[in-house]
Amino acid sequence: MKIISLTTDFGLRDPFVGIMKAVIAGLSPEARVIDITHGVEPFHILDGAIKLWQATRYFPAGTIHVAVVDPGVGSERRPILAQLGAQWFIAPDNGLLTWVMEEAAQSSDDISVWQLENAEYFLPALSHTFHGRDIFAPAAAHLALGADPETFGRRLIAAGVSVTGTALLARLDSTRAVKISEGTWEGQVLLADRFGNLLTNFRLRDFPHGLAGWEVEVAGTTLAAFHANYAAGVEGEPFAIFGSSELLEIAVNRGSAKQLLSVSAGADVRLTRKNSSAK
Amino acid sequence: MKIISLTTDFGLRDPFVGIMKAVIAGLSPEARVIDITHGVEPFHILDGAIKLWQATRYFPAGTIHVAVVDPGVGSERRPILAQLGAQWFIAPDNGLLTWVMEEAAQSSDDISVWQLENAEYFLPALSHTFHGRDIFAPAAAHLALGADPETFGRRLIAAGVSVTGTALLARLDSTRAVKISEGTWEGQVLLADRFGNLLTNFRLRDFPHGLAGWEVEVAGTTLAAFHANYAAGVEGEPFAIFGSSELLEIAVNRGSAKQLLSVSAGADVRLTRKNSSAK
Amino acid sequence: MKIISLTTDFGLRDPFVGIMKAVIAGLSPEARVIDITHGVEPFHILDGAIKLWQATRYFPAGTIHVAVVDPGVGSERRPILAQLGAQWFIAPDNGLLTWVMEEAAQSSDDISVWQLENAEYFLPALSHTFHGRDIFAPAAAHLALGADPETFGRRLIAAGVSVTGTALLARLDSTRAVKISEGTWEGQVLLADRFGNLLTNFRLRDFPHGLAGWEVEVAGTTLAAFHANYAAGVEGEPFAIFGSSELLEIAVNRGSAKQLLSVSAGADVRLTRKNSSAK
Repeated sequence: MKIISLTTDFGLRDPFVGIMKAVIAGLSPEARVIDITHGVEPFHILDGAIKLWQATRYFPAGTIHVAVVDPGVGSERRPILAQLGAQWFIAPDNGLLTWVMEEAAQSSDDISVWQLENAEYFLPALSHTFHGRDIFAPAAAHLALGADPETFGRRLIAAGVSVTGTALLARLDSTRAVKISEGTWEGQVLLADRFGNLLTNFRLRDFPHGLAGWEVEVAGTTLAAFHANYAAGVEGEPFAIFGSSELLEIAVNRGSAKQLLSVSAGADVRLTRKNSSAK
Repeated sequence: MKIISLTTDFGLRDPFVGIMKAVIAGLSPEARVIDITHGVEPFHILDGAIKLWQATRYFPAGTIHVAVVDPGVGSERRPILAQLGAQWFIAPDNGLLTWVMEEAAQSSDDISVWQLENAEYFLPALSHTFHGRDIFAPAAAHLALGADPETFGRRLIAAGVSVTGTALLARLDSTRAVKISEGTWEGQVLLADRFGNLLTNFRLRDFPHGLAGWEVEVAGTTLAAFHANYAAGVEGEPFAIFGSSELLEIAVNRGSAKQLLSVSAGADVRLTRKNSSAK
Repeated sequence: MKIISLTTDFGLRDPFVGIMKAVIAGLSPEARVIDITHGVEPFHILDGAIKLWQATRYFPAGTIHVAVVDPGVGSERRPILAQLGAQWFIAPDNGLLTWVMEEAAQSSDDISVWQLENAEYFLPALSHTFHGRDIFAPAAAHLALGADPETFGRRLIAAGVSVTGTALLARLDSTRAVKISEGTWEGQVLLADRFGNLLTNFRLRDFPHGLAGWEVEVAGTTLAAFHANYAAGVEGEPFAIFGSSELLEIAVNRGSAKQLLSVSAGADVRLTRKNSSAK
């Protein structure tokens, strides 16, 4: 049985997601569909790239991930199929795969990318406004049925080619925190989750010893503490924590850091190593 | 394997939808459930009728569509089972099937309708307030299991009978745009989607050559352009487009027409053919 | 085939729910997942306890219910597995099971509870912040695969032991309406549903003859009527009704009692038997 995941900015109030599932069920009745989220901010490719990356590593090998955050639908941007290690991705070529591509490159996964151009895998009546229904969903269904990826269209990137340096695909500008000097990093808030936790672009892998001895400053506020779980925080006091996606978060125990700090995506975050000899 | 679709105004915060799925799974474990949407405006039958119609044509033949927007639950309105061509519908008889019935009549599909009155297909304890759980979900499960539609209750409309003229079922008043004179049509905004696109009741089939040469006016604003895809629009400028449901939409590239124009469902929309001889 | 239900306060905007489903699908591909809701108020254990209780009785025997409203994640609170009659529950031991435990005790169901402590059933990398992914989802998948409950960890409560009096598990304080004197009951509003109906903690089983002859007062307003279905209400006038969960609700026909009365969870509700001899 094949699993197809869906990540979009379609929301759940309109019938768009149900329509994509109907198309998949009609073509590939055995495929199972799992929603990652349809709550990506409308048109916000980075938000979608992060949410896709947060989830995909937990899916079994062979999963087909369909991602649609697609403000350029109907224009010249290409639809693509990508094989990143053991996982498949179907998406517009607009940067939505930036984070999963980086992760795959870092893991030295084999990467192959094809352009979706074989109209036999599209719905018969192709619209200019809903490629999730007309191109991406049917492509996923055909792949789940066992169609050879080479039959979807021309190859854009061949397995074994380094992806990091290539400009063949659209990519978002780097969205990782940057080391400014020994003891100083600068980054940003990426998004706020449902609980008001602020996810930032500082990665656990860059701070393997944790943040003891570091000071975290966000939007003018210096955080008092670094904790390992939310419940350890003093109520009403924001603190830093490496969350479940191994990104630094700013959180409040049983509260919303987003509301408490009046901070949203894009806000600057600064890490400074505390000098033990300073006053 | 049978597919059951769900369309309701129940939202996803309460357990109502999960309860309907539990009832279906208990009776017909093999049926697969696909949500069309549970975000229909509360009590808003027309909103539900449109969303149901938008989605159902993409489902495979034999799908059983359950639709529950039911302000009259527990009163005298009848629960019904309808076969429209190759698709099945289970809903209250309150107009919710108006758009799919019109579509079926237009396609000359065979139409049969039965009243749901066989209590063997209801849950044992029938409430006055949640027929989605007690009547509609179990009816769908029994139909998926292969129950003969004739055993659900009396026939209200027999296959082959023209439906358009019949008053046997509740129907919403016509909600299509109207041709006032050669070169002048009047219609309304039906709903706004997640992106703020305003769906109207002008149909592509009435304008097979597109809207070049027509002027679109909504709530006092005359739209500057007609485009084939969203990305073709100039940012910040509303335009007209035939969207993925083959209805005329008013849209803004990467923005919300609803917000920009402060327009909501019910607003008047007027189409006028531009006279090339006019000044 | 096993059914796993999910009830959380995770919302649907983040990828948390999709991640839990990915973990389940990877371990137990045959299990079917049904969402009860992910719209529990953040951190609100009582809200989750009620919604779980509303839904679980409609699931088939053998269902595994995973509930995660878990402000203490990563702290000392225990993760548990409970067998209540024919249903299984996996949750933090923080009171989230209070209502389903009470129901099971009332039905004289056999009750067994184990602590989840066998790390073989956890994800390999155990976080401090997302036990839904790392502990609860994999536990459900292993149980669906047929793992012996005795292998999950030590038994906290053995079948046949009375639960009502035990302090072995965390429990919410009683949240039922109380009989003050003959003809006087006091209770509270528990939550408002999507339609603005106010669910209270008065149970149908305590008023088997309905509320004819009783006066309902909420937040200073005395309700004029008691009805059997929503459509029987006069528009704009709040009334009392026993709803589909067999709890007393305060409702308005095609309107929101929550908005009309400006009432929210926790508001006092008082029932008084009208004395026919009073002036």
